[in-house]
Amino acid sequence: MAAPKRLTPKGAATRDRIVAGAAELLRRQSVVTTTLDDVLAHTRSSKSQLFHYFPDGKDQLLLAVAQYEADRVIDEQQPQLSNLGSWEAWQEWREVVVERYRSLGDNCPMGTLFLQVGRNSPGAQAIVRQLLTDWQRYLATGLEALQANGHLGPIDIDQASAALLAGIQGGVAIMLSTGQTTYLEAAIDQWLARLRQADAHA
Amino acid sequence: MAAPKRLTPKGAATRDRIVAGAAELLRRQSVVTTTLDDVLAHTRSSKSQLFHYFPDGKDQLLLAVAQYEADRVIDEQQPQLSNLGSWEAWQEWREVVVERYRSLGDNCPMGTLFLQVGRNSPGAQAIVRQLLTDWQRYLATGLEALQANGHLGPIDIDQASAALLAGIQGGVAIMLSTGQTTYLEAAIDQWLARLRQADAHA
Repeated sequence: MAAPKRLTPKGAATRDRIVAGAAELLRRQSVVTTTLDDVLAHTRSSKSQLFHYFPDGKDQLLLAVAQYEADRVIDEQQPQLSNLGSWEAWQEWREVVVERYRSLGDNCPMGTLFLQVGRNSPGAQAIVRQLLTDWQRYLATGLEALQANGHLGPIDIDQASAALLAGIQGGVAIMLSTGQTTYLEAAIDQWLARLRQADAHA
Repeated sequence: MAAPKRLTPKGAATRDRIVAGAAELLRRQSVVTTTLDDVLAHTRSSKSQLFHYFPDGKDQLLLAVAQYEADRVIDEQQPQLSNLGSWEAWQEWREVVVERYRSLGDNCPMGTLFLQVGRNSPGAQAIVRQLLTDWQRYLATGLEALQANGHLGPIDIDQASAALLAGIQGGVAIMLSTGQTTYLEAAIDQWLARLRQADAHA
């Protein structure tokens, strides 16, 4: 996605429509068997439109879909993820996260895409790293808000937010293998319990 | 893996040699491009030997390698994983886990294998579930040992062990994407800190 072409508003809308439509399609069927023709049919686009926006073809389109799905990971935690200034707010966010992943079931859109474009391709790695960085920043900002509101004493915010993010990723990974959200819930709940305990003893 | 043939000691040794050799090979090169001929050459086996033990071919062999790697996940945490009766013992185990994954770098043998056999195949799922169950049981047993030794008060052991396992899985997943073990370390360290804090306030 580095240095994308500057698009007109109409061009950007067309590109967005192709990406959103491809994402929708790829949530329903295997990335391996999905062809560019399927995407054209599903998004009612022409081959020349598609190659105008994605001259490198399928892998470039898949990376754009991965970026779109990465944006959704954050967006679908909003507005709760941006408003974590009380324990009640953290609890609400917790419900949103668990519900989001429960509804995805055994379909992890980003994971599936990365099977195809290669987890280790520079483009895929950049998207994952940015998502992790952004996500952790939101969590850290939430912890700072708790502190500012007097609900939490001094803690290592980097460590605490990193541990929570790891617990969420692992909880989701285990859900994808087992169909159970219990690990995801335990990871968040135990982490929250720890901070509230730290607060109570502050 | 269901209902394997009963093997003579010599047969079992031959099968083990093929599996261990295939695992070694698959840690060095892509599962996608590895052929059965590569495995035959690497393990100095004949085609008839290989199809005697793995009549269904490559996917069956890959599942056996996945089981072998799953066993290694536990084995390489021993003897520490079976001796978690003090906080010092937990700290030693923590070093072993972080070092194991650091040394694997961006190569996750089980993850790579599952790309090929399909994460959702019944055989692959059974291996992952059993590994998670066994791993969590070791962690829970360690927590019970802490309690028996008077180092830990009453806690929800199921929840605590599930949260730790999720943190480890997520920490490893993030390491595979970013090359950093910081999330894995934060997940374990924060979890340990929580329990020690609970102990201190018990």
